[in-house]
Formats: sequence, structure tokens, C-alpha cells
Amino acid sequence: MSNDYLLSSSLAKSFYQEIKSLPIVDYHNHLSIEDIKNNKRYLDIYDLWIRPDPYKHRAMRMMGIKEELITGNASSKDKFIAWCSIYPNLVNNPLYIWSQVELETVFNIKLAINRKNATKIYTLANAYLKKHVVTPKYLLKLFKVEKACPCMSLTDDITYFKRNDVITPSLRGDNILLPTKAFINSLTKLTKVKINNLDTYLKALKVRIKAFRDVGCVFSDHALDNNFLYLSDDKKNNNRFLSLIKDKPLSNLDKTYLSSYILFSLMGIYKDNDMVVQLHIGAERFTSSRLRELAGAAGGFATIGNSVNVKSLTTFFDEVEKHFKRLPKIVLFTLNPSDNELLATLSGSYACDNVNGLITLGPAWWWCDHKYQIEKVLDAISNFSLLVNFIGMTTDSRSFLSLVRHDYFRRVLSSYLANKINNKELPYNKEDLSNLIKKVCYLNANKLFKENHHVIKK
Amino acid sequence: MSNDYLLSSSLAKSFYQEIKSLPIVDYHNHLSIEDIKNNKRYLDIYDLWIRPDPYKHRAMRMMGIKEELITGNASSKDKFIAWCSIYPNLVNNPLYIWSQVELETVFNIKLAINRKNATKIYTLANAYLKKHVVTPKYLLKLFKVEKACPCMSLTDDITYFKRNDVITPSLRGDNILLPTKAFINSLTKLTKVKINNLDTYLKALKVRIKAFRDVGCVFSDHALDNNFLYLSDDKKNNNRFLSLIKDKPLSNLDKTYLSSYILFSLMGIYKDNDMVVQLHIGAERFTSSRLRELAGAAGGFATIGNSVNVKSLTTFFDEVEKHFKRLPKIVLFTLNPSDNELLATLSGSYACDNVNGLITLGPAWWWCDHKYQIEKVLDAISNFSLLVNFIGMTTDSRSFLSLVRHDYFRRVLSSYLANKINNKELPYNKEDLSNLIKKVCYLNANKLFKENHHVIKK
Amino acid sequence: MSNDYLLSSSLAKSFYQEIKSLPIVDYHNHLSIEDIKNNKRYLDIYDLWIRPDPYKHRAMRMMGIKEELITGNASSKDKFIAWCSIYPNLVNNPLYIWSQVELETVFNIKLAINRKNATKIYTLANAYLKKHVVTPKYLLKLFKVEKACPCMSLTDDITYFKRNDVITPSLRGDNILLPTKAFINSLTKLTKVKINNLDTYLKALKVRIKAFRDVGCVFSDHALDNNFLYLSDDKKNNNRFLSLIKDKPLSNLDKTYLSSYILFSLMGIYKDNDMVVQLHIGAERFTSSRLRELAGAAGGFATIGNSVNVKSLTTFFDEVEKHFKRLPKIVLFTLNPSDNELLATLSGSYACDNVNGLITLGPAWWWCDHKYQIEKVLDAISNFSLLVNFIGMTTDSRSFLSLVRHDYFRRVLSSYLANKINNKELPYNKEDLSNLIKKVCYLNANKLFKENHHVIKK
Repeated sequence: MSNDYLLSSSLAKSFYQEIKSLPIVDYHNHLSIEDIKNNKRYLDIYDLWIRPDPYKHRAMRMMGIKEELITGNASSKDKFIAWCSIYPNLVNNPLYIWSQVELETVFNIKLAINRKNATKIYTLANAYLKKHVVTPKYLLKLFKVEKACPCMSLTDDITYFKRNDVITPSLRGDNILLPTKAFINSLTKLTKVKINNLDTYLKALKVRIKAFRDVGCVFSDHALDNNFLYLSDDKKNNNRFLSLIKDKPLSNLDKTYLSSYILFSLMGIYKDNDMVVQLHIGAERFTSSRLRELAGAAGGFATIGNSVNVKSLTTFFDEVEKHFKRLPKIVLFTLNPSDNELLATLSGSYACDNVNGLITLGPAWWWCDHKYQIEKVLDAISNFSLLVNFIGMTTDSRSFLSLVRHDYFRRVLSSYLANKINNKELPYNKEDLSNLIKKVCYLNANKLFKENHHVIKK
Repeated sequence: MSNDYLLSSSLAKSFYQEIKSLPIVDYHNHLSIEDIKNNKRYLDIYDLWIRPDPYKHRAMRMMGIKEELITGNASSKDKFIAWCSIYPNLVNNPLYIWSQVELETVFNIKLAINRKNATKIYTLANAYLKKHVVTPKYLLKLFKVEKACPCMSLTDDITYFKRNDVITPSLRGDNILLPTKAFINSLTKLTKVKINNLDTYLKALKVRIKAFRDVGCVFSDHALDNNFLYLSDDKKNNNRFLSLIKDKPLSNLDKTYLSSYILFSLMGIYKDNDMVVQLHIGAERFTSSRLRELAGAAGGFATIGNSVNVKSLTTFFDEVEKHFKRLPKIVLFTLNPSDNELLATLSGSYACDNVNGLITLGPAWWWCDHKYQIEKVLDAISNFSLLVNFIGMTTDSRSFLSLVRHDYFRRVLSSYLANKINNKELPYNKEDLSNLIKKVCYLNANKLFKENHHVIKK
Repeated sequence: MSNDYLLSSSLAKSFYQEIKSLPIVDYHNHLSIEDIKNNKRYLDIYDLWIRPDPYKHRAMRMMGIKEELITGNASSKDKFIAWCSIYPNLVNNPLYIWSQVELETVFNIKLAINRKNATKIYTLANAYLKKHVVTPKYLLKLFKVEKACPCMSLTDDITYFKRNDVITPSLRGDNILLPTKAFINSLTKLTKVKINNLDTYLKALKVRIKAFRDVGCVFSDHALDNNFLYLSDDKKNNNRFLSLIKDKPLSNLDKTYLSSYILFSLMGIYKDNDMVVQLHIGAERFTSSRLRELAGAAGGFATIGNSVNVKSLTTFFDEVEKHFKRLPKIVLFTLNPSDNELLATLSGSYACDNVNGLITLGPAWWWCDHKYQIEKVLDAISNFSLLVNFIGMTTDSRSFLSLVRHDYFRRVLSSYLANKINNKELPYNKEDLSNLIKKVCYLNANKLFKENHHVIKK
């Protein structure tokens, strides 16, 4: 890849110079905590580059590659060759750039990726892995990662984590909303709180979330999937909770009431712990049952849901604000690009004295994380809220090599602003601009981890 | 601000030359009719520049400024300084350009806006206001305003207005749809029509709307907020109306039926009076109860609602057309940018012999009123209907200084068309283009006020 | 029109050189099969250029032309003059380019289209038609059409068609879902299958669809109009079908159940016949009753519906995949541009070993078929699926002259990719790019007709 890819003007290049060497804060991802704990040494390029990357699996499926060669029982080498063979068909898909940059950055291999070169690349890369000790630690250093936050469930073992480490957990909260018996048993063990009703459940949540906070967890996240509905408390949620823990069947309506109430309650706990809540909005995760069975729940076949129900969101936020006095800091992600503006605008609809960006739109997420949608997100944030409050890129990835996308993002941002200035849409004020790009690429996210009580300026 | 801001080519500059000096028709706004009546002299820059501009309040909130310094009890000077202090953070938000242009245009101050310069700007500006008699009349002349139409409710006092004045009212119709007792009493007084059922209510509306028309009112507007639903007449609306005026409770469903019917009926009255109906679609005005209490209903915290229900719109329009033989001229505004194309297309779905642009998309509205969305609106109108029928910009603002946005719009339009021509997307036909830009910037809106019966060519 | 219209760089021109002379595969349109069968000679420009083009009728309505001069009883010449007179108002609408190109390509007339030149153009064009024998065959040759597929209903006479002809039918399936008695009678006659319940109905469909396949029909299409809902089989559909054929009234809910089930069943038949299913999503065809009466159901007044119900689509596809083992190849068209990304993403949600692009987004459709939305579709396909699987342009038109839009599309594609490369967004790999543009403009669509069993590579 050319050194100046995505940098379309000298002004873009000069912006990029200012930010390219800033450390990376990857505040939400799905990196393997097992690999990290064990500082696993990678000895096969397939294992490092293809296996943990559902974006690539998805592209292979779209090219008609047999599932056996994607997530099936074929050999690593055959899967690797299958991947290389479809690469030339990816023109104008983000993978066409990312994959090449990944290969160059980690393996220093600049060969064209295709069926012809596949075996050669496989051999060269594996030789590289034999010569160099490539591990999570190595990769985090290579990418200048200051902070990376893999998702952990509330009942996962967090004894490995320490508050100021590079790796701290991000709390994935989805299984809190309609807890299973097993979840409740684990939670009781971990917190010593006897859970026999909704109140004691919330009490246990408080204790355990505090424990996450104590090991440096700043971000939580909740998926508000396609058709998300928020139902205000009707004072019957304790009964529903009792039914749930007694394994009595709950209707979908009952489930929506109960999960709404628990989500509402969590917002108070997050606020009290000065945590940042990520809401991942708009995925439809149930598509092909066949692929779900073959490739697992995160197998790369989820799709974009309909526009979020605005009234549900505004009611939810308003009730939290009324009840808990203020909202926690909230970052909104959407998989549906037609909601970018709608969500960015909420930034001006709720506020808190002394907190900037109480609610902000997050980065282009998942299938949207490419130049096309990054620019749309920059436009939405800039015009419907304030770009300076944007907390910037996170990979949300299972693959260490996806960290190249921080550099990709910085290039896109540099060209985006440079184009506006070159087109006379934006006055050139060096200081304001320099301040802006550093905040967006690093300082804003960094700040959330640095201070003890980061959200409220006191 | 550079003289050629937003003008990215010599062709853009030449288009701009053709239209920059055209008069302004600001056919719908919220300028203070009290200030206008009294030709109030402004003596404090805060009072003129910050207080009446919820866009700025909203930006301050997003930067964590205390509400006390926004809409609270702090002094004008402190609020002014707070505003200046956040300005450098507005890079790439439209306020970054507008504010600077406002300051230059009205006060001839070109200092950078920031905390450091805040006191100096405050002093200079107030000195300017002491030296020059800056009033509504002064400002309307400064901006070459030929026509400006502040919103008035149907029962407001309109004795001030005269048909061919610069200032004529725009009729805000929202409180007509579910009238209060007070509204009905006022209406009775004003019209001498005894209102005791739905028919007599409609009769009174006719009388009063005619009175508005007689003092030069051409535009009415109705807000079709988030989740707008149109329900066809089920012949029970007189009963609902009787309940309403007897203070009996109406269900939400009943309210929707009744307000649908009254809106339907109004369309016939507007048509008979050759009035233009603005439909402001898609706002969600209920977000933070806290901000609503602190900053008032128009305090800058409204957000974007979901996509409008198309079936409701098409049924509504079809029933009006069937019953009243033709539709009044309708201008559709949307706060949700993902509806631009959908609404622009309706321009081809209803028609009337001899009327061009019977239904047209209106300008980018409210939080959408910036280059990013103005261009999207130009694209939607051009491709899904006809740009030549576009009635152009209106500020919809509470601030006289927002009138700078007409110049902003003209620059955006000039560059938009010039880019298409420079990219060989559009053939250069001088006459057709010149005709187009003058119509869009001035002639189309001007024409609606000029003729006695402007809609139907006879 | 300039020779290099839409080609904004030398790279764009070089891409265009590669594809401009490729044959045209117009895999779905509404060309008059009567005109084709009779190889009708056109002797009046109105009859060839204006009458069969509802896009032009729609533009005339938006300019306030009387319906009498559009679809009414006025003379061809008067209608022609009315059209020319509004042409200068079309600046920046796609018709502004298309119309000029149509006139030049077919009649070699380069006069400006306007009221002044109208009579002259009319005379010149009709003289041309007197001198040259302009017929469907002539036009198909002029445009290098290799394959064109006009829509036919299942019970239409297809004895004219032969498998490898230029003209083969595209199956319009809408009237299959809730068949009338007349439809069933015709189907019985054509298939010799006695239809007395749902099973025998499906059996008859199989026979008749096979007959379509045998005369070269590859594509079917179904309209999933505004508010499309898919309801899973509740095992009561045979009863509903019996009611339907006995003329007993069905509720809307019953109709939705039954039509869902028949659509589901058809997918299996299409799959077994290796047919490609086009789903035309999101039109709202009921707008003005007045225009429907005057201009007919396809009269150019349909509008854009709301976003499609994603859950309905994913459930539908999943059930088909589960029941029939795999999906047929599906091409998704949407009239609502805010659904482009949502639909493109489904390409990665369902897959089949050895089939590339099992589900793909189709070209910008109907009111969206212009540079503005073609580029959006290219962006959506590229970023959310794979551009290389795109089957490219089809006119969906009733007018032979609309075939100029294939050239328009090729120019847009050339500039689109060239811009990405010139802006350093896309590396320049000559071979990959050349491969891509040929597939998208011709080879992908061509391939579907060429092979006997085209979908599954065996």
C-alpha cells in the first residue's frame, strides 16, 4: 500500500503527521482474553489473520467459498489459500485495503494477495512467525496501544485485571437484563449477596459493577437490537423477576418490561461509578439459522435492523435523568447509517452542568467501519452535535490485526478536514484544528481512563 | 471570514455574483413581533446575538457550560463570555461559520471569538450599539429583507399587520387542531361566530383565516411531529369535539381522529384562500423534562423523530384532493434527513393543472440547516422532483442575525451547481442556470406574495 | 451533449473506453411485447419518445402542464410541444441529460429542447422516422442489446418466445400471490392441472413456471410494497385459499398469511428452476386516486414507502433456506434510498456453497435511477457487500429510448471508480479493476442467461 493512501492533499498529510504517532486507546473490543493472559505465541498466519476475523469469513461466503473452507474442518493452509483466492474480488470493499495493510504491518509482506501468491505468502508469513515471537504483548507494542478493553461478562473472572494496566475490561451487560439461574448463582458467589428478589439482584449488581470499576473498567455496553422497545416501570417487575428466577415462563411483553427496568436501574449504577455506557443500536442478529449453527452467534452474518424507536430512547433517557438526577455518559453506536443524524442530535437533548458530550454518537460501527461511513459519522457528529466531543475510533474487533484501523481512521479524518478547508467550507485555524484532531484521535478517550472521576469535572 | 468562503471555484463565484444582492424573502420565522412593533433598540450584544438563538444555547450545553450561564440568572456579560469561551470547539459545526459572519456583518468585528477576546468583543460590540441605532428596522434593511413572516397563532392580535408590508404574519396552526376552551372563546370574540359544535368551529376558522389572509398572510404551518398518524373521518368527530369543549377527557385515539379531521378541513380553507401550507415533519419535542422546565418548550433540546408514516401522508393528501377537488400548495419540511427523498418524491404524486410545484420539499430545516444537509436537500429535490420549483431558504429563526444564512445558502447553492458543471455532471446552459438560481433564491418565494391569487395561474 | 459528459478525469475516460462497447443485457423491463412481436414501425416522435415514458409525464405534471397535454386527448404534436416547453426547467434532474441524449442517439438531433425549437424538432424527427425504418429490432440493434426481458404475467401467452432469443420474458409474479378466479382458470387451461386446493395450485405454478424457464425466462420479480409483512405459515392457508377461490371475503390479515405462504412456496420453485428472484421493495403505489384514474396504475405518480420491515425479510429468507435447503439467487431493489445499506448487508447474511452473490442489492431503481443514487448504490454494495457481485443496470422501462441509461450507468461507474483512485482511496490495480467493471456492466448479467444451470457452479 502506498504510504499516502487515503491522504489526498498536502494539508491532509500535514494533519496526519500530527496524529499518526499518538498512542491508541481501543476502548471496546473482543480480543481473546485467554490469548492475552497466556501471551500466546502465534505460529500460523491463518490463526492470527483469518480465523479471528468474521469480516473475512463473510466476504468469503459472498464469493461462494464453501463453509468448510471458512469455519469448517479444512486445514489452515487450505483456508488461507481460499481467502487469498477471493481477495482480488474485494476491490472497493474496505477489506481490500485493510488486509493489505495488515499483511504489510505485521509481516512486512508486500506481495499481491491472490491465489497465485497464496502459498508463497503462507510460507513467508509462517517463517516470520517462527523467527519473531509474535504475541498479544508484541502486537500491542507494535501498534502503540496504550489501552485496550476486551469485553467481559459481569460474572467472568476478573482477577487478572489491574486498574492501570494496558488491558482493562469493558463490561458487556447484555446477559444482566434477563438473568439466567446460572448467572444469578455466579453473581451470588462473587458478591456474597443473597438474591431473592429484584432489589437484592440490583444490590448484587452494584457490588459486582464496583468490582469491575475497581480493576479499571470504564466502559460498559448494551445491545439495543432491532426492534428495541423501552417500557416504563409499571411496578410489576419484582413479580416478573420472581417468575424468572423460578423458571416460570415470561411473555415477550413481560420480558420487555423487566429488561427495560433493569437497564434503567443499571444506568444509575453506571452513573454512580462514573462509567461510560455504550449503546450498540440496531443490529439484527437472527438471520440464517444455518449459518448461526455453523459459524456461531458472532459468525459474521448479522445484518442491519430498522431505525431505532426514538420515543423509546427519549423516554428511557428522560426517566433515568429524572430519577437519578443525571445521566451517565452515553455513547451511541448504530448499525443503521440512516440513524446517524437522529442519534447525533440527541447530544443536544440531554445535558449536565460541567460535562461535555454527555451523550455523543460513537464511531462508525461494525459493518459501517470504513471510509464511507466514517465520513458520514464525522458529518453527522459535526453538524448535529460537536466533533470535538467525539471519543474516536475503537475496533470492536476479535483480531489484533484490526488495530491497523486506527491508522486508517486517522487518515480518513485528516483528509476529511483537509477537503473541507481546501473547498473553503471551513476556515483554517491551525490551533483549533490541531486541538480537535488530537482530541478525537486520542485525548478524549485517554481522558476517560486517566482521571479517577472522569465524567464530572469537579 | 474570507470573502469567498464556501465558493470553491470561479464558476461558483460567478453564480454567486448573480444572486448575492437579490432581496430576501424570509417566509417563515419566529422573530419577536413585540420587538418589531416597538422597533426595539438593542443595546447589549448578548441580547441581540446569544439570547434569542437556541442553536448557541444547545452548543454551550454540549460543551458542559452550566445552565445558569445559558438560560439562567447569570449576567449578560458572563453568559457572553461563556459563549465565546466554547466557540473554538465548534470547528466544523455550522455555528463556527455563522457566528463569525454574524459578528462581522452586524458589528464589523473580525476578532477571533474565544475566551481571550471575549471581554474585548463585548466592549466593542456594545460601543457599536451605543453609537448606531440597531433595531429590527435597521436589521431588516441591512439584510435587504423584502418580506419577513413571523409566526402568529390564529387568536393573536393581528391589527398591527398590513397586506403589503415587509412584515406579514405566518400562521402557526398547531393549537387549532385540539383547541382549548380559551382558544375557542378568543376565536368567538374575534369572529363573532358562536361555536357550539364542529361545524361552527370550522366556520369560525374560515372567518379568522380569511382575516389573516387579508393582512397578507400567505403561509400557514402545521407540525406533524414524531409518530404523526392520520385517521380518516369516521363520522364521530363532532361528538369528540363536543367532549373536548365540555372538558371531558379524550383518549389519544380520539384526539388523533379529531385532530386529523380538523387538519383535513383546514386544508380546504387554505386552498380556498390560496395559502401555502408548510408541514414541519418529524420533530420529537419531548426529550429532557429537566431542560424543558429550565429552557422552555423551544429551548433547543428537541430531537429528530423517526421516519414519517408514508401511508398517513398519502391518505391525507388523497382525501383532501378528493373532497376539495385540489390540494392547496404544500411545502414539506423534515427534521429527519433520511426522509428527504421520500418527501421530495411526493411532488410527482399529486398535481393540479396550471400549478407548478403543488407539493415541494422545503429547505433543510432546523438542525438540518447547514451545508451538509442543504446539499442533500438540493440533491433530493433535483433528482426526485424539480429544483426549479424549490421556494428556497427561510431561517425559521428567533434571531435577526440568522438572516446571514440566506447569504450562506446562496453560496452553498452556487458551489453545488458549479461543482456539478465542473465535474461534467451537468451541461452548462447559462440561461437555464441563471433562471434557476434566481427562482430558487428569490423569485419563487417572492411570487407567492406578489400576486393576489398566486397559486393557480389563470 | 458533450462526448465526455459524466467523465470527469482521464482515468474515468480510460475505464469508460473498456466498457462502452460491451453489449447490453437489460434483464428486466416493461417494453411493449406487442410492439416487439409486430416489429412496429414508429412514425411519430411523440409515440416513441414521450408517450411510453412516465418519467416525462411526471415532470410535466410537476411543471403544472394540464393533464390533457400529458395523458389526455390533446394531439401528439401539442403534447410534444408541451414537453419541450418545460424541458429548460429540468436543470439538474436526470431527465435534463437523458432526454438530450435520447434525442441525439436516435434522431441525431442536437437542437436545444425548448418551446422555441419544439416544432422544428417535431418536424425533423418525424422526417427522420419517415426516412428510416425505426422499429424495436432497429432500436435493439442500435443499442447493442444482447438480451432484453419484458415482463410477462404467468398466464400471458408465451408462445412467441424461444430460449436463446434476444427477447425472453421476465416473470412478473405479483398476481400469483392472491390469484383471481380468472387467473386460476387460465392457469388450469395452460397447465392441465385441476386446481381445487392450495397444493394443486402450487403444482400448477410449478408446471407453468417450468414453461417460462423453457423459453429462456431467468428472472422473476415480486413487489414487496410499502408496509410489506411476512407471516409464517400457521397451517391455515389451504382454508384461506379455498375461501379465495370461492369468492368468500378474506380479511387483510388472512390475505397477508396466504400471500406470504405462496411467496414462500414460489421461492422453492424458483430455486429448483435456477431462476433469479427480483424483489422490488418499498413502493407506495396508492397516492392520488385522481391520477390513478387519469393516468393508469403505472402512470408515474407512485411514491417512496417507508423502510422495509427487516424482521419480515430475515424471517422469510430463513424459512425458505430451512425448508428448501437453500435460497434461490435474490436481487433486492429498493425505492427508499435510506434502505440501501440495510439491504446490501443481507448479502452476507445468507450464503450457499459455490454460489457467489446469492443475495445482492440490485441497481438504483425507478425514481432512484440517476447518478446521485447510482453512486449511493455503488457505495452500499461496495462497502456492505461486494461490488464484483453486482449484476448491474437494467432499465425497468417502458421506453426503448431508456436504453441510453446503460451508457449513462457505465459513465457513472467509470467516474466513480476513477475518483476513488485519484483521491487515493483505492489502489490502482489494472487487472482487478478491469475485471470488476466488465463483470458489473455485462459479464455478471450475461452469465445468468448463458449457462443452463447458472446459479450453482457444479
